[in-house]
Amino acid sequence: MSGAVVSGSEAAQKAEVLVEALPYIRRFANQIVVVKYGGNALAGASESDALALFAEDIVLMQAVGMRPVVVHGGGPQISDLMARLGKTPEFRNGLRVTDAETVDIARMVLLGQVNPQIVSSINVHGPLAVGVSGADAGLIVAAPKDPELGFVGEVTAVNPEIVNRLLAQNLIPVIATIGSDASGQAYNINADTVAGAIAEALGAEKLVYLTDIEGLRRVVSDPTSLIRQTTADELDALMADGTIAGGMIPKVESCVHAVRNGVRRAHILDGRIPHVLLLEVFTDAGIGTMVSGGL
Amino acid sequence: MSGAVVSGSEAAQKAEVLVEALPYIRRFANQIVVVKYGGNALAGASESDALALFAEDIVLMQAVGMRPVVVHGGGPQISDLMARLGKTPEFRNGLRVTDAETVDIARMVLLGQVNPQIVSSINVHGPLAVGVSGADAGLIVAAPKDPELGFVGEVTAVNPEIVNRLLAQNLIPVIATIGSDASGQAYNINADTVAGAIAEALGAEKLVYLTDIEGLRRVVSDPTSLIRQTTADELDALMADGTIAGGMIPKVESCVHAVRNGVRRAHILDGRIPHVLLLEVFTDAGIGTMVSGGL
Amino acid sequence: MSGAVVSGSEAAQKAEVLVEALPYIRRFANQIVVVKYGGNALAGASESDALALFAEDIVLMQAVGMRPVVVHGGGPQISDLMARLGKTPEFRNGLRVTDAETVDIARMVLLGQVNPQIVSSINVHGPLAVGVSGADAGLIVAAPKDPELGFVGEVTAVNPEIVNRLLAQNLIPVIATIGSDASGQAYNINADTVAGAIAEALGAEKLVYLTDIEGLRRVVSDPTSLIRQTTADELDALMADGTIAGGMIPKVESCVHAVRNGVRRAHILDGRIPHVLLLEVFTDAGIGTMVSGGL
Amino acid sequence: MSGAVVSGSEAAQKAEVLVEALPYIRRFANQIVVVKYGGNALAGASESDALALFAEDIVLMQAVGMRPVVVHGGGPQISDLMARLGKTPEFRNGLRVTDAETVDIARMVLLGQVNPQIVSSINVHGPLAVGVSGADAGLIVAAPKDPELGFVGEVTAVNPEIVNRLLAQNLIPVIATIGSDASGQAYNINADTVAGAIAEALGAEKLVYLTDIEGLRRVVSDPTSLIRQTTADELDALMADGTIAGGMIPKVESCVHAVRNGVRRAHILDGRIPHVLLLEVFTDAGIGTMVSGGL
Amino acid sequence: MSGAVVSGSEAAQKAEVLVEALPYIRRFANQIVVVKYGGNALAGASESDALALFAEDIVLMQAVGMRPVVVHGGGPQISDLMARLGKTPEFRNGLRVTDAETVDIARMVLLGQVNPQIVSSINVHGPLAVGVSGADAGLIVAAPKDPELGFVGEVTAVNPEIVNRLLAQNLIPVIATIGSDASGQAYNINADTVAGAIAEALGAEKLVYLTDIEGLRRVVSDPTSLIRQTTADELDALMADGTIAGGMIPKVESCVHAVRNGVRRAHILDGRIPHVLLLEVFTDAGIGTMVSGGL
Amino acid sequence: MSGAVVSGSEAAQKAEVLVEALPYIRRFANQIVVVKYGGNALAGASESDALALFAEDIVLMQAVGMRPVVVHGGGPQISDLMARLGKTPEFRNGLRVTDAETVDIARMVLLGQVNPQIVSSINVHGPLAVGVSGADAGLIVAAPKDPELGFVGEVTAVNPEIVNRLLAQNLIPVIATIGSDASGQAYNINADTVAGAIAEALGAEKLVYLTDIEGLRRVVSDPTSLIRQTTADELDALMADGTIAGGMIPKVESCVHAVRNGVRRAHILDGRIPHVLLLEVFTDAGIGTMVSGGL
Repeated sequence: MSGAVVSGSEAAQKAEVLVEALPYIRRFANQIVVVKYGGNALAGASESDALALFAEDIVLMQAVGMRPVVVHGGGPQISDLMARLGKTPEFRNGLRVTDAETVDIARMVLLGQVNPQIVSSINVHGPLAVGVSGADAGLIVAAPKDPELGFVGEVTAVNPEIVNRLLAQNLIPVIATIGSDASGQAYNINADTVAGAIAEALGAEKLVYLTDIEGLRRVVSDPTSLIRQTTADELDALMADGTIAGGMIPKVESCVHAVRNGVRRAHILDGRIPHVLLLEVFTDAGIGTMVSGGL
Repeated sequence: MSGAVVSGSEAAQKAEVLVEALPYIRRFANQIVVVKYGGNALAGASESDALALFAEDIVLMQAVGMRPVVVHGGGPQISDLMARLGKTPEFRNGLRVTDAETVDIARMVLLGQVNPQIVSSINVHGPLAVGVSGADAGLIVAAPKDPELGFVGEVTAVNPEIVNRLLAQNLIPVIATIGSDASGQAYNINADTVAGAIAEALGAEKLVYLTDIEGLRRVVSDPTSLIRQTTADELDALMADGTIAGGMIPKVESCVHAVRNGVRRAHILDGRIPHVLLLEVFTDAGIGTMVSGGL
Repeated sequence: MSGAVVSGSEAAQKAEVLVEALPYIRRFANQIVVVKYGGNALAGASESDALALFAEDIVLMQAVGMRPVVVHGGGPQISDLMARLGKTPEFRNGLRVTDAETVDIARMVLLGQVNPQIVSSINVHGPLAVGVSGADAGLIVAAPKDPELGFVGEVTAVNPEIVNRLLAQNLIPVIATIGSDASGQAYNINADTVAGAIAEALGAEKLVYLTDIEGLRRVVSDPTSLIRQTTADELDALMADGTIAGGMIPKVESCVHAVRNGVRRAHILDGRIPHVLLLEVFTDAGIGTMVSGGL
Repeated sequence: MSGAVVSGSEAAQKAEVLVEALPYIRRFANQIVVVKYGGNALAGASESDALALFAEDIVLMQAVGMRPVVVHGGGPQISDLMARLGKTPEFRNGLRVTDAETVDIARMVLLGQVNPQIVSSINVHGPLAVGVSGADAGLIVAAPKDPELGFVGEVTAVNPEIVNRLLAQNLIPVIATIGSDASGQAYNINADTVAGAIAEALGAEKLVYLTDIEGLRRVVSDPTSLIRQTTADELDALMADGTIAGGMIPKVESCVHAVRNGVRRAHILDGRIPHVLLLEVFTDAGIGTMVSGGL
Repeated sequence: MSGAVVSGSEAAQKAEVLVEALPYIRRFANQIVVVKYGGNALAGASESDALALFAEDIVLMQAVGMRPVVVHGGGPQISDLMARLGKTPEFRNGLRVTDAETVDIARMVLLGQVNPQIVSSINVHGPLAVGVSGADAGLIVAAPKDPELGFVGEVTAVNPEIVNRLLAQNLIPVIATIGSDASGQAYNINADTVAGAIAEALGAEKLVYLTDIEGLRRVVSDPTSLIRQTTADELDALMADGTIAGGMIPKVESCVHAVRNGVRRAHILDGRIPHVLLLEVFTDAGIGTMVSGGL
Repeated sequence: MSGAVVSGSEAAQKAEVLVEALPYIRRFANQIVVVKYGGNALAGASESDALALFAEDIVLMQAVGMRPVVVHGGGPQISDLMARLGKTPEFRNGLRVTDAETVDIARMVLLGQVNPQIVSSINVHGPLAVGVSGADAGLIVAAPKDPELGFVGEVTAVNPEIVNRLLAQNLIPVIATIGSDASGQAYNINADTVAGAIAEALGAEKLVYLTDIEGLRRVVSDPTSLIRQTTADELDALMADGTIAGGMIPKVESCVHAVRNGVRRAHILDGRIPHVLLLEVFTDAGIGTMVSGGL
């Protein structure tokens, strides 16, 4: 209590919101929620404000007893540093060829720039977040996805013990999606895919993608066809018929795989809505697209 | 998420309330809050509704990581059963003479009627509450207050271990203010006093009295003189000059003693406001009277 | 040692009794024994003496490492309070119709009168006993037995965690046989039945009924036909042919069900024999009727 | 229960003995009792019967929750083996000169003959006892008592951790009084002295010497002057004036030192009385001589 | 660092040895290694020097995180004491007839002479070793091997809990191969057989026999036919065709049984090589004969 | 054992080295050793070989039970990236002015380049190392050292809990010397100073600086004046008279402060000697300069 006086009806409204949150707080107590935070969100103009709101959501989830895990990439920031270092990107089939210098740049950006920004934003609220590389304690074991692409990796195993131990200490892991093979070679891996793999390895309750779209649509051109709830099977069909395409594919594929492998719900949310995580998790409101495994 | 659609401004308001609660949730994590729930509150017409709202508040406090303890008396209900059994009360200096039959009736009402009502209201939300008698495992050791009054007791010791163990199991103790001496004799004890003694023994963060007044006043007849924040010293003065009198004395004395003995804050709140506990604990609003130890 | 001198032969006899107890103490270490203590035993003339002896037995069992659990009802006391409150009992097929007021009275008597009497008698020896309601932390989940009977309940589930935790703290649970449904509605349940259900849920070593008969008989009219040892199958037969009838049915049915569901031995003992529990548990003497599951 | 029928009065007597033991069982729960068992007791004609009774007492103490520790020597057995090996003892001031061969013989007898006899007698009741040498894990650190006496040791330190760990596992340590210095050299040490040192190091509740006398006397020649209760100060005086002399000196000195260093009571009991330990510990009878620290 | 100056090449060599040990240290961390130490090794002229080197090896294994267990017999020492006591050995089919006096002598020698020698040698390095008899806490349960042989035992059960608890405390158990039946009767058991049974019961990584031969040979008369690595099946064949015979039989049979029952490797090493245990465990050198279960 | 045959004298030498290491392994069991690994060591031509040897040393220390902590900076690498990004360094009083862009570059290099190189080199041996930023969970709290220098920080607090927890899980923390203030602003801090502060906060046994000099000298120009052992007081004098100057000052000041604040020994070693850590820690050889607190 700070001393400000509040009117009766305002008080009643506040109480109502808190009471509305009660069943969700109880249902999600001790549950793990893996949140993929996009590199895009950090690259824009007002990114630091958006990051501050995101950090509040994560801290609130942790404060009421949930165990959030943040996973992030940093594509735009990697391109930016490559440009500053005078390095010209080369692509094959839409995927960036990643030579040794490029993977070093990617590692530098992810571990040394994006990750500490997120960690610092959370730690404004206290010593809560810990940055984690996929190379720490064997967390993400990787192998080359395609020899022609160089050090672009795919996940071959996840050893989530380090993350589980941080969670057991009420810390918030912030994971950069660098993987490593047995020889210590680093790989850059698609962050959407890593988020899904980690959610599965942790047996998460939820896997959440924060994107810059409102949600998935059944008809691409029709905003009224927003999908509120769907299943893995329907998403398979929408990918098969090309309705879902492009950059959404890794997200949707990960959602489908995750809900079929122990994750109870996956969500594609509009990260441009302030506090969208809170609204999704703690209110009765319907936000974005929710995916479940069953029929 | 249940699927209901929510407007943007409504969503923003909801998020704001939740974010407003964040610092309080973090500050009070694992803190013990002892709440004295009055027998009056259970005796009225719409008592069951009020009790349901109170139970929601207690459950929400527990859900976000606080450790609430409920202490209750049951004066009106005792008088009622005495009347039904044809027993005429006798008073000396305003205190009820409590013979062996009366203390048996009091025990029956507190443990067998009021306590299970509160426990049941909380347990609608799950197996959370456990009724506790002051005679359980030596919790409240009592002695006669005055030989002329019979089995009216005063607290001589509190052994809070049973309560601490229930709290450690994330259970909500609901304590009936029956005390016991070494021979097993039961005593009826003023519940306001017991609440303070238990808050001290537990090292509580807060001691909260739910009453039927808006708060303490500096001038009894002047509603604008409501005291929002005060200290133990000021309350001593207000009791000395008679501003505070009557039934408020045990509450105020307990507040003063408690904040001088390890309890950080004591509160006198208006139990008639729906969800008053939530508003006090989780919002910036100023409710009732808050007592601190210092200047 | 207090200093009294003892003769050699008396000493030898004492030592002999203690040594006789040794194998039983070792065999029953850490074993749970559920003892149903009858409301009758508390209602008679010299009930407080009998209760004191009973409390000594329970405390001694706990002192040597067993884990006793007391379950009690209180039929006579409920009838007594109903009479004092001018309420006329109504029966159907021998079962009391229990309207809302009656179940409130039953709860008041069990939790507020009988339970604290037993708790206090044990706690004369130290802070050992804790009163427990079946409504505490969802211990006894109940449903209506028969719509015509009102709030007479039957056990649908037992959640013994609260009892196990008290036992783990070397406390003695004293359980009043009030059950609760999900809405918080209280039910009065036959205490003999509850005792058996709790013994099963706890995986008790023994289930003991203290009664006012010497034991079961094979021929009702023949005192020499006392059954010392029997099996679930024989008791089924004796109930089928009407040898066992009336108020013994719930006890015997519970014994039969319990020994077929994980309880090793059930006993029907004569509660009128002083310290009958000690004699049964710690000596070679044959007391009452013992039931085992096998042939 | 084995099925034997017992008469009412016999049952009452048995119950009385058990109830008499209750306060002692509760008082001594988890308390450590160090019992010095004399080598004499094992050397006589009917030694094996006496040892079996002793083992029952130790097992019963452990069964009801005490933590007994047995300490033993083996003087007569050492002399016997020396004689069989044709070795002539040499004495100086009444103490045996202990050359290298003699200490090897002593070690062989204590660890290889006396200790396993005691361990085996206890383990007839189950896997309860563990033989411990003073050389195990540095339990008894020794130094030469007098260069002229060779390997006769005195205790310079006790590291009771190994004993505490066995006790924590509900095992019964049986300690042979061989000590060791840092170089691994073994020493033979007076077992009465070791028992006292171990009782102090363990913070024992009781130190008990089983002897072949009825107790200490105030007048040596007067059997009626048996001392039932005494203090360290009185015993100092009785040693100073020569009333207590000879082989009783190490026992009495150890009693005096122990009760002044944290052991609550020391006892000198007549080991010839069957089950004397049980009688002392669990009955109101006055047995032998009890020493306390205070006045 | 003690201050001595070291040349560059010497330093390089030292570092090389330590680095060579690294993979073995990591592979064997927390692994149990059961080492059978022969009575022969203690009976010779320079036995104390050999014992000191052996103790260093055991302590080093424990220091780097392994959990060594020593098992020993003492045949020559038993014969020696029998001779000194004028007792003539009697043999049947090469096995010593063991009457009551002989088993007492064996127990005295094993527990009272050989065991404390080994314990003392280890404890020169600190309070690390604890002597254990097979009769302690039911470790080795034995039965007569053959009625004609008296108290020669065979292992009927191993209860390794006492050994596991000592290992959990970072202590080094030194086990004398005396067994016991339920009545407390002691038996002398072949130490090679006991070592194998204990290795199996502990789920040891390695079972090591220290012998006075270089290893097993495929052709007895040909030193160049030393077997470096072999399997259980090959050893079965070599016993069947008589290549392996005599005193090696119990060792080889135990190796074969152990690697077929959960022990990963068994070794027959030349105990005459100084620090042979270290060389086998921590270097790339090939020493003695190694037995594995598979092909 | 891999099967290679080894000569007797070579075996003896190997055993000797291992036995020489024994007392050091035992003395340093569970001790924390903080090793400052210089950015210089990673910047040179053959840096990757040197790093591989260093990683072997760290893994071996951990394998035998020590708890190594690596602290690193990366000055040369920061300068290099600044140059590649076309940024001109500015210095004041020999210290680099660090604007916002520069601290971002420093953080990127330390967390994203140097730290993962070290982590990967260690993790070639298994999932052992975890990269840690000083901003993780509030590990290093920093404040501006001098307003004119921008984001050059000094340590105001160390919260070592995250490091202690990793050590408790047998992980090897590799710490990048980025600090953070309460607002989340990053600071670049001298790594020598951070290493000392962390050693103190952890109560380390040793603080080791790997440098490119042989050790400290009493006379700068005289190689024979190498200081093998010294004290905090002598080092104070050598700094006061200018013998120790320049880049060695932060190292030596940290050594002096550390040994006066709970760290037992500090060492300045020549990181150019292969396996210099192993030689210092596990052999009797005298390497570099050792600093102790006392006289």
